[in-house]
Amino acid sequence: MPQDLKTKEDYRTLVDRYDVFLFDCDGVIWEGDHVIGKAKETLQFLRKEGKRVFFVTNNATKSRKANKGKFDKMGIQCEEKEIFTSASASANYLKSVLKFPADKKVYVLGEKGIEDELDAVGIKYSGGTNPEDNVFIDLMDFSSITSDPEVGAVLCGLDMHMNYKKYARAFKYLRENEGCHFMATNLDSTFPTHGTVHPGGGATVAPLSCALGREPLVVGKPEAPMLESIVQTHGFDKSRMLMIGDRLNTDIAFGNKGSIDTLMVLTGIDQREGFEKEDAVATPTYVLEALGDISVLA
Amino acid sequence: MPQDLKTKEDYRTLVDRYDVFLFDCDGVIWEGDHVIGKAKETLQFLRKEGKRVFFVTNNATKSRKANKGKFDKMGIQCEEKEIFTSASASANYLKSVLKFPADKKVYVLGEKGIEDELDAVGIKYSGGTNPEDNVFIDLMDFSSITSDPEVGAVLCGLDMHMNYKKYARAFKYLRENEGCHFMATNLDSTFPTHGTVHPGGGATVAPLSCALGREPLVVGKPEAPMLESIVQTHGFDKSRMLMIGDRLNTDIAFGNKGSIDTLMVLTGIDQREGFEKEDAVATPTYVLEALGDISVLA
Repeated sequence: MPQDLKTKEDYRTLVDRYDVFLFDCDGVIWEGDHVIGKAKETLQFLRKEGKRVFFVTNNATKSRKANKGKFDKMGIQCEEKEIFTSASASANYLKSVLKFPADKKVYVLGEKGIEDELDAVGIKYSGGTNPEDNVFIDLMDFSSITSDPEVGAVLCGLDMHMNYKKYARAFKYLRENEGCHFMATNLDSTFPTHGTVHPGGGATVAPLSCALGREPLVVGKPEAPMLESIVQTHGFDKSRMLMIGDRLNTDIAFGNKGSIDTLMVLTGIDQREGFEKEDAVATPTYVLEALGDISVLA
Repeated sequence: MPQDLKTKEDYRTLVDRYDVFLFDCDGVIWEGDHVIGKAKETLQFLRKEGKRVFFVTNNATKSRKANKGKFDKMGIQCEEKEIFTSASASANYLKSVLKFPADKKVYVLGEKGIEDELDAVGIKYSGGTNPEDNVFIDLMDFSSITSDPEVGAVLCGLDMHMNYKKYARAFKYLRENEGCHFMATNLDSTFPTHGTVHPGGGATVAPLSCALGREPLVVGKPEAPMLESIVQTHGFDKSRMLMIGDRLNTDIAFGNKGSIDTLMVLTGIDQREGFEKEDAVATPTYVLEALGDISVLA
């Protein structure tokens, strides 16, 4: 069972115990367009204490730059390099781990956020927001589904411009091009917005997984690559890192899989029942009512 | 192990043993635009012997009428009512089994073949080929994803006009409308054409299954509803019915699940290794080199 953090002494011990704090944002720092309680004050306090702060999001539709815009709007201090999205982590993974060859390109099934991050690491791509790939084909007209031996990876993320032409092209590359990597930014089945949920990144990857009969390498939470990307970029000691989130199956599982400690806050999706039940998907190291509680130390 | 049919006596016994012959077409009767061997002569012989002949296909993109066009073009005798597609079987299932209410409508994720068959049984629908549902929405613009309490079922089939708006709408109806049925014409992961394969009906249903976290009721092969639809429509005795096909995981499994005998021909996708291995997905009652072999009786 996780340790409940309730007193000033608990908070102080926690802050002293770790150097690097990774934050999920939705349900932890903000909900929609509103900061949750004193979350901002806690972040300021951690910075003042000399802690490193990072924000990790599965949202791959926007670049880190566009993500920073939200922080600015809410008056929360944040540098672009402190943001890790499943799109930026995917680009890093292709570049650093897979050593993606300069003469190859990535076929993108997703939005501009992925393209911007591939640009940032100098990897060529096709598909994505290219108008030629964002059209409906006529029924049974496969004339535009042709080979492209230059494609060395297919990278999928939430794509509100998903269409059959893109899937048929991606499927062809993955079947024909030897060693072509099949990657997904994340497999979230839904994403919450404005008090409801809509089909998520996992839903727009699903046609390809189904046709191929195999699953992609997943970069985002709860899988390991995004964490490894942060650790490698900065040379951090995992025993001094803490992941803070509101969802067991993404944030807390992300910490568990990556072997770092986790703190669950109760201001978002999951509550105590989530980790108290026998078949819990993940168990946090600590539980705290709200991130803002720590600001009492300030 | 299945019984090998090799002699005139074998063929004669088979023909006498059954009254109703169900045929898969691709890989059995034709391959692309060519009739396979003497398949046509065998069909003519069976008709002359007073047998009932039916054609069962998972292809839901075309109506039975449009399907008949292919028979006509190849000079093979066929009446529209002898064709059962996963689209016509879905419409029948909604009408006869689910007694779909007249004041409700079906939201279609698929092509005109499904709409035509719903028209044929007098069931109202939305989505499908409606231009309003076949557009790309702007990123994170959910203004057009609104409730519709009239939707009583979502029916998905291969949809080359698949798009996020349709999935988000279907997802909303399935979450909000109590008792809303989730159905798929078939779950074929791919479909073969012109010597290659492309994403199939299963691939275009997958986003919705993923977002919902549950599987649809499947009408087409290898599931039971299409066979039950034929049996109920005609009042046939299952012990006198034979399913003939080339694929173990669709055609032969279809007969196995529906408790009718099966004949596998070796002119299509699967070969002997398929049913000889220990974990075979299905086992045919009989094996025959080619459908045309039986025409020796003519």
